[in-house]
Amino acid sequence: MREIAPFRVMEIMAQAKAMEAAGRDIVHMEIGEPDFVSPQPVIDAAIAAQRAGLTHYTPAAGLSALREAIAGHYQDRFGVAVDPARILVTPGASGALQLALGASIDPGDRVLITDPGYPCNRHLISLFGGRATTLPVSVENGYAVTPRSLEESLTEDVRALMLASPANPTGHSIENHLLRDLLIRLRQSNDRLLICDEIYQGLQYERPPETACALSGDDLIVINSFSKFFGMTGWRVGWLVAPKAMVEPIERLAQNLFLAAPTAAQHAAVAALGETSLEILEARRTAFWERRDFLYDALQQLGFGVGERPRGAFYLYVDAAAFTDNSDRFAQQLLAQTGVAITPGSDFGTHRADHHVRFAYTTALDRLAVGVERLRGFLRAGG
Amino acid sequence: MREIAPFRVMEIMAQAKAMEAAGRDIVHMEIGEPDFVSPQPVIDAAIAAQRAGLTHYTPAAGLSALREAIAGHYQDRFGVAVDPARILVTPGASGALQLALGASIDPGDRVLITDPGYPCNRHLISLFGGRATTLPVSVENGYAVTPRSLEESLTEDVRALMLASPANPTGHSIENHLLRDLLIRLRQSNDRLLICDEIYQGLQYERPPETACALSGDDLIVINSFSKFFGMTGWRVGWLVAPKAMVEPIERLAQNLFLAAPTAAQHAAVAALGETSLEILEARRTAFWERRDFLYDALQQLGFGVGERPRGAFYLYVDAAAFTDNSDRFAQQLLAQTGVAITPGSDFGTHRADHHVRFAYTTALDRLAVGVERLRGFLRAGG
Repeated sequence: MREIAPFRVMEIMAQAKAMEAAGRDIVHMEIGEPDFVSPQPVIDAAIAAQRAGLTHYTPAAGLSALREAIAGHYQDRFGVAVDPARILVTPGASGALQLALGASIDPGDRVLITDPGYPCNRHLISLFGGRATTLPVSVENGYAVTPRSLEESLTEDVRALMLASPANPTGHSIENHLLRDLLIRLRQSNDRLLICDEIYQGLQYERPPETACALSGDDLIVINSFSKFFGMTGWRVGWLVAPKAMVEPIERLAQNLFLAAPTAAQHAAVAALGETSLEILEARRTAFWERRDFLYDALQQLGFGVGERPRGAFYLYVDAAAFTDNSDRFAQQLLAQTGVAITPGSDFGTHRADHHVRFAYTTALDRLAVGVERLRGFLRAGG
Repeated sequence: MREIAPFRVMEIMAQAKAMEAAGRDIVHMEIGEPDFVSPQPVIDAAIAAQRAGLTHYTPAAGLSALREAIAGHYQDRFGVAVDPARILVTPGASGALQLALGASIDPGDRVLITDPGYPCNRHLISLFGGRATTLPVSVENGYAVTPRSLEESLTEDVRALMLASPANPTGHSIENHLLRDLLIRLRQSNDRLLICDEIYQGLQYERPPETACALSGDDLIVINSFSKFFGMTGWRVGWLVAPKAMVEPIERLAQNLFLAAPTAAQHAAVAALGETSLEILEARRTAFWERRDFLYDALQQLGFGVGERPRGAFYLYVDAAAFTDNSDRFAQQLLAQTGVAITPGSDFGTHRADHHVRFAYTTALDRLAVGVERLRGFLRAGG
């Protein structure tokens, strides 16, 4: 417990809410949650399930209809055949991460994660008795783990490599041919897993998304979620694609950890994969794309180090070294002085964290514009 | 993972379902889930929340309105004042158990649990790097942990005692004056916790329920759920009452483990605590009470060792030594030959498990009657 640091973003959010309650206007660029309400077909399906009295537990692995719908989605969207029996529905990606780590870590095992990266990963690893080793990733390599840095970190006790594509906080993706390179190196020992977090899948621009499910192997776990692209954060439904041999033990673990994902939310998730919903989500993706371009151009123009235009998620992770060597203080002062909420790099690791901040474009274009103007004034005034 | 045994009840359920699919009529007395659909006010509140577009995350600790409603429930029903700030809403009691254990166990710590007891507890303890030590409890002591057996087990490395009241699988409750005795002994060292699982609270007969929240102390965590008494299994909402000093670290842990409980389900849970819902639930409690008496009398008459009439939950944990010394085989044969599904004692521990089976009265009285008649035939035929 002592190792679990609080998220700075939570403090920022709490402070922002207190300021709002006191009448201040806040531009929220700290929140990792789409601003859109869930698509109407999702809401309708939940209501129909509840009206029909479907209020009991589902099986621990999830509704068959949902597991099949997810498999259908892999087929339709990616042309990849995934056996529904390998798909386990979870309470959000959080549940899937717990299962993946809980099922693979023995006490003392090392898990490689990226820095910067999703902060919960490190904490979950240590909670299950493992040890996290960070692989620093940098803008120079498009925030990808390089085969060389992986090889240098592959000590005997490494049990798994966790990667996210598109990634939080950077928005960068790993293409499958690079992933395959990493997998080959990982396979120098038989007993290692690649855990791919694809929870921002679908929120991708310029290039169509790929899935690690296209790579075959009994050493690959893929994690996904209905929260981000599908806009279902509050429903708590995600999933995991496991190697066949791990399905049974992971299902047992699911029974122990959470019994099952929420029932109505699973019925809603089936609808999220339907045609009407996907059309709505496609329009939202376009909106996110516009926001990204607006914000990227604006931040570049203001003098932030923006690197290559990230092709996914809804984040820009930028270098603020021109303005600060203490991104925590920078974020705090920006909020206090201008009402613009962003997340400091320290939430995502230590590598160059003091110089980096994350902007989330999870608010409307006009609000982003207000935020940018306030930021401009803040920087002009010397921060 | 290797230590996590599968639940026998899952195999029994899978087999029962396969038999049903093949046209057999099954009497389900294996399932730890109320047969009733959630009360209508619960469903209505969820639908209203979804219609209003409340599909985003709630705070990790849960909706303020729900935390306050739970505090109100403690006040109204038990006359106990609980600060809403000490109440954290969780995805089911499973989430609450994870938080309680995750926040209290350091690697190597011992946690005392009862045998028989809820099987997940042991697994969660070992998943978080702790070690479970079982305290055998027996019908002779009303399935309570005795002060003497507790004292004998209080080695230096014991960090917590977990108790359930009413308990699964026995249905027995611990009165607060006995709980206080145990707490006094636990306090011989400063650094120990009592974790009270009250997830069957409300499903109590003859005597009004008590809550461990009435006992003061900074070493007491109480776990509860909307699943059982409130009939909301598929919604995945529970809660935990923590000592003030543990609230902040537990909240951090919640952010890492699951972000938040499902949103619509939390709005539904507020309605579950309302007057209309409580009236419906009271009628259901009476129905469970009738079922208990019918089944208890019938099993006693058939020759099972039934002990004292358990005053809570919806289980009867009975001694089948007159018929078998292998309760696994007994349950399997009963299902195969008669279509009556029950749970063998081995799901709940090892202490006298071979002689014990659990009957759940989570099905209607007429179905229980059919089950009893088939059981009678099975026993007559020599099992």
